[in-house]
Amino acid sequence: MITRADVEELDRTDPLRGFRDRFVGADDDLIYLDGNSLGRLPVASADRLFDVVHSQWAHGLVRSWESWISWPRSVGDLLGATLLGATEGQVVISDSTSVNLYKLAAAALDLRPSRRTIVTDSGNFPTDRYVLSGLASARGLRVVEIDGAALQDVAAVLSDDTALVALSHVDYRTGALLPMDSITAAAHSAGALVLWDLCHSVGAVPVSLDACAVDFAVGCTYKYVNAGPGAPAFLYVASALHSSARQPIWGWFGQQAQFEMGSVYSPVESIERFLVGSPPILGIALVESGVRLLAEAGIDRLRAKGIALTSLLISLADSWLAPLGFSVGSPRSAADRGSHVSLRHDDAYRISQALIEHQVVPDFRRPDLVRLGCSPLTTSFSDLYEGMRRLRDIVSSGRYLDIEIPARRVT
Amino acid sequence: MITRADVEELDRTDPLRGFRDRFVGADDDLIYLDGNSLGRLPVASADRLFDVVHSQWAHGLVRSWESWISWPRSVGDLLGATLLGATEGQVVISDSTSVNLYKLAAAALDLRPSRRTIVTDSGNFPTDRYVLSGLASARGLRVVEIDGAALQDVAAVLSDDTALVALSHVDYRTGALLPMDSITAAAHSAGALVLWDLCHSVGAVPVSLDACAVDFAVGCTYKYVNAGPGAPAFLYVASALHSSARQPIWGWFGQQAQFEMGSVYSPVESIERFLVGSPPILGIALVESGVRLLAEAGIDRLRAKGIALTSLLISLADSWLAPLGFSVGSPRSAADRGSHVSLRHDDAYRISQALIEHQVVPDFRRPDLVRLGCSPLTTSFSDLYEGMRRLRDIVSSGRYLDIEIPARRVT
Repeated sequence: MITRADVEELDRTDPLRGFRDRFVGADDDLIYLDGNSLGRLPVASADRLFDVVHSQWAHGLVRSWESWISWPRSVGDLLGATLLGATEGQVVISDSTSVNLYKLAAAALDLRPSRRTIVTDSGNFPTDRYVLSGLASARGLRVVEIDGAALQDVAAVLSDDTALVALSHVDYRTGALLPMDSITAAAHSAGALVLWDLCHSVGAVPVSLDACAVDFAVGCTYKYVNAGPGAPAFLYVASALHSSARQPIWGWFGQQAQFEMGSVYSPVESIERFLVGSPPILGIALVESGVRLLAEAGIDRLRAKGIALTSLLISLADSWLAPLGFSVGSPRSAADRGSHVSLRHDDAYRISQALIEHQVVPDFRRPDLVRLGCSPLTTSFSDLYEGMRRLRDIVSSGRYLDIEIPARRVT
Repeated sequence: MITRADVEELDRTDPLRGFRDRFVGADDDLIYLDGNSLGRLPVASADRLFDVVHSQWAHGLVRSWESWISWPRSVGDLLGATLLGATEGQVVISDSTSVNLYKLAAAALDLRPSRRTIVTDSGNFPTDRYVLSGLASARGLRVVEIDGAALQDVAAVLSDDTALVALSHVDYRTGALLPMDSITAAAHSAGALVLWDLCHSVGAVPVSLDACAVDFAVGCTYKYVNAGPGAPAFLYVASALHSSARQPIWGWFGQQAQFEMGSVYSPVESIERFLVGSPPILGIALVESGVRLLAEAGIDRLRAKGIALTSLLISLADSWLAPLGFSVGSPRSAADRGSHVSLRHDDAYRISQALIEHQVVPDFRRPDLVRLGCSPLTTSFSDLYEGMRRLRDIVSSGRYLDIEIPARRVT
């Protein structure tokens, strides 16, 4: 049986324990288990934002663009080198994940014009499925949605009609982590291209885009990267595709000699061809600051702690919650999951609301998941223990049964 | 002859004089005449940003989405009501201007599937021309670029093959202000739709989208709206089109019952169908704060001061600069121009650089324009006088002739 003393010892010997103090509010009473939906605010990011706003914007004014203009690429390079396994010139910070998915999926489809099929996961994040279906609808293609459980054997559904395999590296509900190397290799064997969504893996799970020979990838920065609500996203395109892949949104930030304001769109042959409009400077500054903190911790230590946290969570769920009608909705093998765990219960919505009332913030995911995120820099073992204890007490005492289920929820 | 005493009197009696102190750095020695490229930082915006970051993000965390989720629409409504002449439910804050142009131009083209021509201005801002040409290329359409001077008589080039007329309300180089009402009416008479780019008019020139029966509009918020570098843009779609117009990027923020995470994309029948990914919350907060300041000043007073400033500028140019090889590159009739004036000179690039060295910030626009922005809330009459005096002295003394022209400039 795991005791409070055990988890306090885990916290004492945690090599990342010092990082918690580098976030604003991490010492408050809240037990925050939704850092994989919105990460906490790093102290350094608040300071950086103040500097960019008060020095660079307020006083540097338009002259600061001399420096800002290179940020989408320079921060992309930093992110690529430290968290994505990408050598320089293949990553930029740009737009939202959804817009980046659209740009890169369209570019991929244009590279396989005679193929008519897109393969994705039926449980992929909604925006991924919607964006792909929009592109398919406009081009008369078909989207094959296969069940996540069958993805380990994705080769079986690929053919010479498959243009693109677009998947999430870590499943937003179950936390299942897909083998990027073998799936990418299988897609390539079939002559298809791959597009990976890294939203739930960047900053928590090692990613090796170059080594896996990935073609395209996208992801957000407001989860483990802690860059704030609606922070700008990133995109990766392998260098080998920079001369052939074109995106559909021909914006001036992709243009050669941009400030010549030329009459004909002629994109640069580099990663910047996937940029569109004026880059969101304050957001990119926060991405940089968030990445630097993760890089300082190191992805291997982040991953090790993520595994330790999620393993503890599953052990406590088995001991305390299985008798209360819960089952573990995430892979039991640490190698097969990211940094969050979902617990299934028929009353997951009401239980999630009751947890929030008791100062524990999980995420409810339809229809029956209480999703618990373990953010390696800010979640302590004691947090997790206390959060699970409150969850057990809420359910065993029935203190969630009087919560009303609204007709339509906001989140 | 206009004297320094004259402009000091204009400043003393300026009904908007108090607003200057509400910007960070507006009392520094810099003469900033590029507020139409990047506006200054409002004090209230710095405070608002601090609150959103430290209270709502750091402490509210993911729970703040309960409020944030409505911001793209609520701030869009505020912008629409105060600066765009748009009743509620027709404006959202979203993405960049370029991405919004793409979404709305695509939606418009889908509504006129049998028509094969897009009409725009050959001098339209590059991203507008590039985005339109990208869409035309993908769909096998043609773009007819007509000369700005011919736009007053745009009806002559429209036909039953014209799907879309896409123009900038105020020209980014010359400041020419187009008659939105008559051009929109002419387009509609030909059965075409209109898409107006308001980047250089929003916050400086009255805009009456509803009254002009405009179909689509977009614009940025980092110029006169003062929302910061790369701040999120806005888009307007007339209510009558909300059930028929569809955009190509099927993101989850356009989806009905978004958090049901449904399997099929089915967009809401409201302006939110033009949203895509997670909205940039910090940026939207800055947009709101910037709009509130402009609304407090009132668009009529802003416009009146903009006309007074640009008229002064033209008078000084005629007196001081015409003998030095300058000509006025902007309309002389105040009713036909926005809030900036461009001065032509063969050595415009080197002169612009010399001005910056002398603490006057203009914008150089190829090939031969020194562009001077008059931001009604932050530019004083004395600023303009002193800036023009330095410009005269730099050119008359030849103190720009030793500046080198780089092979490729950043801005």
